[in-house]
Amino acid sequence: MGAALVVVVNKTLTLSSSQRRQLIDITDQVVNCVEVSGVREGICTISAPHATAAIIINEHESGLALDILSKIDELFPQPSRYAHNAIDDNADAHLAAVFLGHSRMFPVTKRKIVRGTWQNVFLVELDGPRSRREVLIQVLGE
Amino acid sequence: MGAALVVVVNKTLTLSSSQRRQLIDITDQVVNCVEVSGVREGICTISAPHATAAIIINEHESGLALDILSKIDELFPQPSRYAHNAIDDNADAHLAAVFLGHSRMFPVTKRKIVRGTWQNVFLVELDGPRSRREVLIQVLGE
Amino acid sequence: MGAALVVVVNKTLTLSSSQRRQLIDITDQVVNCVEVSGVREGICTISAPHATAAIIINEHESGLALDILSKIDELFPQPSRYAHNAIDDNADAHLAAVFLGHSRMFPVTKRKIVRGTWQNVFLVELDGPRSRREVLIQVLGE
Repeated sequence: MGAALVVVVNKTLTLSSSQRRQLIDITDQVVNCVEVSGVREGICTISAPHATAAIIINEHESGLALDILSKIDELFPQPSRYAHNAIDDNADAHLAAVFLGHSRMFPVTKRKIVRGTWQNVFLVELDGPRSRREVLIQVLGE
Repeated sequence: MGAALVVVVNKTLTLSSSQRRQLIDITDQVVNCVEVSGVREGICTISAPHATAAIIINEHESGLALDILSKIDELFPQPSRYAHNAIDDNADAHLAAVFLGHSRMFPVTKRKIVRGTWQNVFLVELDGPRSRREVLIQVLGE
Repeated sequence: MGAALVVVVNKTLTLSSSQRRQLIDITDQVVNCVEVSGVREGICTISAPHATAAIIINEHESGLALDILSKIDELFPQPSRYAHNAIDDNADAHLAAVFLGHSRMFPVTKRKIVRGTWQNVFLVELDGPRSRREVLIQVLGE
């Protein structure tokens, strides 16, 4: 592959959540952002500027969504003795966000993200409902 | 550092696994990909387009490999009541993939990945054996 | 956005830890590195070349720091039967590093990292005290 000029395209999604913990599928927005970016080869990052939300990638299946939320509840139970809860009653949400992470990436090649059949992208709300959650999709490459 | 043209090099590995859960060391392929890429300064990403596999970075030591697989079994046990198992009997593999993540990165500087002595790269098979697992190594930079 | 030449700026931090497990806030160094990089649009990665340390992003609040360290102790207890401990008595630190990950990223836009109010960056020491831990901050973009 030859050398080229770099292009960076950013898109911000603003989303609302309706439950305390919830998965919101943003795959279509990510795929579309890459398609219109003009980037042939590069990297697509998806990140949430929040400390009580996360980005994950996995299959969109209703049973699995329940399993993911149940596993989060199991590993990071809400009614527990957290020191942070003296300040704000959401330490469990922060802890889940630390372990899940606030960003994921896909490589981009031949103008498309390299994504498996069962790889959808989700914003994970961990402390909703919230009226204003943001996700930044960035495509960088040539 | 001065400004330069960007280069993006992609390499796809095709791997097979022999066990349900297994660590497959791909460090040599990653290091080699960076060496032949011609990239002096940039980023190397390693990602798997799968919902039941993951990429991790840590020490290659046989005892630790057992410990990692045991910890995955402990946190994401197979014989459990998952809603997704009404569809496909592998919810535990999806859940482990959600938490471990399907990608990792290394910075590249002076034509080499910045990697600690004990940082090897592994594809984590979570639902094998499979005859065709893919890993995309991408080097992007100048 | 138009096409441009790519710039890559690297900065290495050398840090020491004083406890076995400890959070060290490096947010100011990350923000400063982006500010002086000259990069307008791009990506900032923060990574540790270690197998017993991690990078996380979350709120800097003393109670939450205790909660994060407690959760790590709970999920990856030290006095346990690990196979790796026949070699080195720190399997718990490796396991926590595998799950937390050794790197995190922020997008950069308009010469600033896109960071939530409660998103600080921490090196997580998992096997200290150590006199020489490194963190590489890399800013890549145009």
